[in-house]
Amino acid sequence: MEPSPSPSLDRLFRPRSVAVVGASAQEESISGRPLKLLRRYGFSGALYPVNPRHQTLGGLPCYPDLLSLPEAPDVVLVGVRADLVPGVMEQCGQVGAGHAVVFSSGFAEGGDPEAQRRLADLARASGVRVLGPNCQGLVNLAEGIPLSFSASLDTDRRPVGSVGYISQSGAFGFASFAMAADQGVGFRYVATTGNQADLDVVDLGHYMLSDPEVRLLLLYLEGLSEGERFLHLLEAARAKGVPVGVLKVGRSAVAAAAAASHTAALTGDDAVWRALFRQYGVIPLEDGDDIQDLGRLAGSVPPPKGNRVGILTTSGGAGIILADACADAGLEVPSLSPDLRGRLDPYLPSFGSSANPVDMTAQVINDPLGFRGCLRALEESPEVDQSVAVLSMITGESGERMAEDLSSAFGEAKKPLACCWLIDREHGGRFVDRLRADGVPVYSSLGRCARALGALWRWSRSTPEPPVDAEVSRNLLDAFPTSLTEHDAKRFLARHGIPVTRERLVTSREEALEAARQIGYPVALKVMSPQIPHKTEAGAVALGLGGDEALTNAYGRILESALRFAPEGVIQGVLVQEMVREGFECLVGVKRDPLFGPLVAVGLGGIYVEVLRDVSLRRAPFGLQTAREMLRELKGYPLLTGARGQKPRDVDALAELVSRVSRIAAAEPCLGELDLNPVFVGFQGGGAVAADALVLRR
Amino acid sequence: MEPSPSPSLDRLFRPRSVAVVGASAQEESISGRPLKLLRRYGFSGALYPVNPRHQTLGGLPCYPDLLSLPEAPDVVLVGVRADLVPGVMEQCGQVGAGHAVVFSSGFAEGGDPEAQRRLADLARASGVRVLGPNCQGLVNLAEGIPLSFSASLDTDRRPVGSVGYISQSGAFGFASFAMAADQGVGFRYVATTGNQADLDVVDLGHYMLSDPEVRLLLLYLEGLSEGERFLHLLEAARAKGVPVGVLKVGRSAVAAAAAASHTAALTGDDAVWRALFRQYGVIPLEDGDDIQDLGRLAGSVPPPKGNRVGILTTSGGAGIILADACADAGLEVPSLSPDLRGRLDPYLPSFGSSANPVDMTAQVINDPLGFRGCLRALEESPEVDQSVAVLSMITGESGERMAEDLSSAFGEAKKPLACCWLIDREHGGRFVDRLRADGVPVYSSLGRCARALGALWRWSRSTPEPPVDAEVSRNLLDAFPTSLTEHDAKRFLARHGIPVTRERLVTSREEALEAARQIGYPVALKVMSPQIPHKTEAGAVALGLGGDEALTNAYGRILESALRFAPEGVIQGVLVQEMVREGFECLVGVKRDPLFGPLVAVGLGGIYVEVLRDVSLRRAPFGLQTAREMLRELKGYPLLTGARGQKPRDVDALAELVSRVSRIAAAEPCLGELDLNPVFVGFQGGGAVAADALVLRR
Repeated sequence: MEPSPSPSLDRLFRPRSVAVVGASAQEESISGRPLKLLRRYGFSGALYPVNPRHQTLGGLPCYPDLLSLPEAPDVVLVGVRADLVPGVMEQCGQVGAGHAVVFSSGFAEGGDPEAQRRLADLARASGVRVLGPNCQGLVNLAEGIPLSFSASLDTDRRPVGSVGYISQSGAFGFASFAMAADQGVGFRYVATTGNQADLDVVDLGHYMLSDPEVRLLLLYLEGLSEGERFLHLLEAARAKGVPVGVLKVGRSAVAAAAAASHTAALTGDDAVWRALFRQYGVIPLEDGDDIQDLGRLAGSVPPPKGNRVGILTTSGGAGIILADACADAGLEVPSLSPDLRGRLDPYLPSFGSSANPVDMTAQVINDPLGFRGCLRALEESPEVDQSVAVLSMITGESGERMAEDLSSAFGEAKKPLACCWLIDREHGGRFVDRLRADGVPVYSSLGRCARALGALWRWSRSTPEPPVDAEVSRNLLDAFPTSLTEHDAKRFLARHGIPVTRERLVTSREEALEAARQIGYPVALKVMSPQIPHKTEAGAVALGLGGDEALTNAYGRILESALRFAPEGVIQGVLVQEMVREGFECLVGVKRDPLFGPLVAVGLGGIYVEVLRDVSLRRAPFGLQTAREMLRELKGYPLLTGARGQKPRDVDALAELVSRVSRIAAAEPCLGELDLNPVFVGFQGGGAVAADALVLRR
Repeated sequence: MEPSPSPSLDRLFRPRSVAVVGASAQEESISGRPLKLLRRYGFSGALYPVNPRHQTLGGLPCYPDLLSLPEAPDVVLVGVRADLVPGVMEQCGQVGAGHAVVFSSGFAEGGDPEAQRRLADLARASGVRVLGPNCQGLVNLAEGIPLSFSASLDTDRRPVGSVGYISQSGAFGFASFAMAADQGVGFRYVATTGNQADLDVVDLGHYMLSDPEVRLLLLYLEGLSEGERFLHLLEAARAKGVPVGVLKVGRSAVAAAAAASHTAALTGDDAVWRALFRQYGVIPLEDGDDIQDLGRLAGSVPPPKGNRVGILTTSGGAGIILADACADAGLEVPSLSPDLRGRLDPYLPSFGSSANPVDMTAQVINDPLGFRGCLRALEESPEVDQSVAVLSMITGESGERMAEDLSSAFGEAKKPLACCWLIDREHGGRFVDRLRADGVPVYSSLGRCARALGALWRWSRSTPEPPVDAEVSRNLLDAFPTSLTEHDAKRFLARHGIPVTRERLVTSREEALEAARQIGYPVALKVMSPQIPHKTEAGAVALGLGGDEALTNAYGRILESALRFAPEGVIQGVLVQEMVREGFECLVGVKRDPLFGPLVAVGLGGIYVEVLRDVSLRRAPFGLQTAREMLRELKGYPLLTGARGQKPRDVDALAELVSRVSRIAAAEPCLGELDLNPVFVGFQGGGAVAADALVLRR
């Protein structure tokens, strides 16, 4: 499954001619607004209203159809009824239009997947790449080109910045854009993809990443049709050093059902998405708030070099709330050295505090140099990696001066600097607006500021493991029977280098006795039959057999039980297996996700998995770094490293086993599911061994 | 520790005369603003500026000192330097002023606890109850009386509503008030308490609760000096049906240190606060955002009867985000019946959806009756307990109409109805302002709306257990030795009705043999010595002794070890103890919190507590309801009720034991610490028994 290369979308994002099919004279209607917006933004290319009912529209000549245009338009905006769209698409193909942006609803989301398939076919046949249907189009803010009917663009405000934002939902996409713009976030492109009959979030994402001015990529996702292409997009962003924030909806069952019907995409399992976000260093978003909060920051400050935050505050209480929120967000609020405190103290009143948070108190309004001095001291100190200035109800001239000080400090800062100004619009709106105009990330919420700083810090620190090759051996599974017994599964795993229990398949009691003596008592006996995948339930297992007599008795008993359980079953033989005497119980498994392919899970055995659901998950294949991260993520990890005075376990061997399983999963396309349960992990140096295994083909 | 009765604070909150000591002609300074504000608000009582340097101030006669006033003022606002405050306080006492509100800083928070003690002494001696020092005063918005210098009050906007808000931090309190007012929250009182030399959050809280118009009480807390008084306040609020939201700061170590120095109070252990919030049904807040979000809702909608939310949206994507957020917040977004869908469908376009979220799509702007009809259908349906209308970029006349529809639906609603309007100020500000003026809780964030609805729902549902009496038996501990051995501890517990292992204290091998035969093998032997609290480490324990021979050997061995470990130790004897053969290991403990007194902890034994920190905590005493809640809170709870096909354990017996321990903790004032570890819990009907016990006196 190689990803299809992303098309160049220059004609879509930078058209020199735009036709508006179904253009209306009612400027406030969905069909009237695109033309209105293009004119309001002063679009410099050719503009062609198309509507057989008008001769002219807004002073422009209006054409009866696309075939009548004087040239092939780069973009055709389509706002007609769903049943008229195919005809328009045919004309697009005939004239050689570059792209169609289909606003029309009533395709897959309205219960007519057939209409959508037809649209996709027409796009493919004509070479006209389509955005939509059921989308609200896009805007290139950098060059002032709106190809949308969204009311959010009907303004003189052009919040140009470095954020690229792609949303499957048109209404949410442009609404969250407008609210973020209100909060000072600057965008370079906003695009909505709707039902994604043709072009999708991934295509548009690659295009935005090709613009070096894009410094943050934000995605609203309901689902995907191809997982791997999406992961390549994430890798491309990482390679360019561009953080990606993803708002993946449909986490709950109700929401997933709604998302599936909304844009008719596979929403996927939430646990899988969360695992992938960790694996690929994606910043998870939950709400439009997160779009504002991250957008404000990521586009305007340098990546943090560390997680130590210096807090400078006019309100002791607000400083404390921020310190709590920083701790929650994985940031450190370090104690400051006597040296640094000595530099801060001269600017503070006697009842202030140069501990961190640095409490200037409201007295700072009486000291014109204090704020500037404190900001400089923190910026210049190697003791903090980022700073936040917290201002409360500082008004009037003091507010003016502090906004100015902060702006100029921000302009010179080599470290991230953010501001929380806790003030109402009437008293502080103009300060906040001024700071935002200067690019300063200003928050009205302490918690949200801390969470955004924490997210950016985690992103800067995360170093996704370089892709690993799968095993050299491939397709070993082909040589095994269709239904694999435990013994088959173990031989398969052993050929791939996974340590398994010593064991021998026998077909008589005598052979069993010989094998047991060779392996060494105690042993386990297990009846091998493809018809008995769950051997314990069938009574086909005897554990801890200490000697010849016990083995002799058990041999007949388990064979009888097995035959009773599956009278028609094929008995391959009886497995004589070493009893692993000591080892911490873990499990390692592989499942295939419909979107993302093979995933590897590891958990501590028994109750940890079943009651506490303490499992970590990654997409295969991966190397040791990722395997170790998975283990460290487990809540029960201390049990492996020696909690309660226990000797530490062989974590290296377990990580090696997990990584190897991931490479097997990638190298065996016919492998559907794999369960190693339990894997026994010995003490350090003692290795890890699979004591039971189940392999299911796809 | 009976709580001191709260003083009536009518003279403070509704003064008929106010003196401003240190009043300044500079209206924008801290000492100038109180007078300015009182005049701006048209304070109708007598106003006395006091400052020897002025004859008049703002047209009012100015007095050289308090002694020169024509009457005893109800409130004296004090904004002079810290060293001048005692003189002012003395004059307050001499003239018989009602209250002093001390803005001045430089007391305990500035490293001068002595000055603060002196202030408290003066208050006590004179009967003048003091708010502050280091506070920003208060405002009675209902009657327009500002007793503060906060710039947040310097406006014509009077956001009068039903929220009472008390903050220890002056700057944060008024800043968060101003921001919440911007977001449509209406307040009745805002008060800041600063260092709380005299009046504290609890005093003011009781006063606000005495006003039936207060429908939500919000507290910003850094710490307390007396825990029990605070808990009585929570109980009083519960009795009146008033939700209490508490922003308790100092959760992280750095923040706790800052809080401790900021207002010099005991911040307390975060885990304890969280447990108390659960026990007393308090809504935990983390940020100023939460003040806005809860304030908007709790003051204006009826308490929800259930957690089923109907979502009505113009943006499918936004509806999905809200559905996810509702699930996260413990709310249900139920599927709607065919009947209800049949009522909604006529208002929806063919490509909309009457599933929940109900997706009206942007087409609703073309259908003037649709929104109203859908709102009514949800309000009238018994299938949902609360509704949220999600609007995206609906502008112009459509926006106008939908705001109107929503306002009138809200006015008639018997169920909670909230709105998320995702729009920028330019296009939607006036709709949002209009809705807020009509009392509709309007959010710009889907997640925050869901969290507020969830918090209010949890509050409505929570029914704190009525207080239980402690044990009838009290002070049994007095009859025991100063240092209790395990045997002493168990006798003590047994007398309080706690089931303990069968055991006998012996002083010879022969007696031991006899006891063992009586109890029944296997048994454990343990050397009892007050000098050996940790017996296993000292080798003073032998477990699982199966018969006479094993017991005989062990007897001498453990005595020897014990003597080697504590050569000077007093040996009380050797305990012969039944070995509990079967039982799920738990632990139950009591610790004494400096603020809140005895707390009971229960956890599943071994790794659950030590690695996963899976413990629940409550304040003693409590009954079975609370004990059961504690158990259900444990992540490992399914292990008790029969996870993995196990037979369920005797949860009732464990709950009974936990509740009994809580009553012992309350009935034994000399009990410092109690540890029952392990407690073995048998299968259903099998009881729970303490197998080891440690009692420490205070």
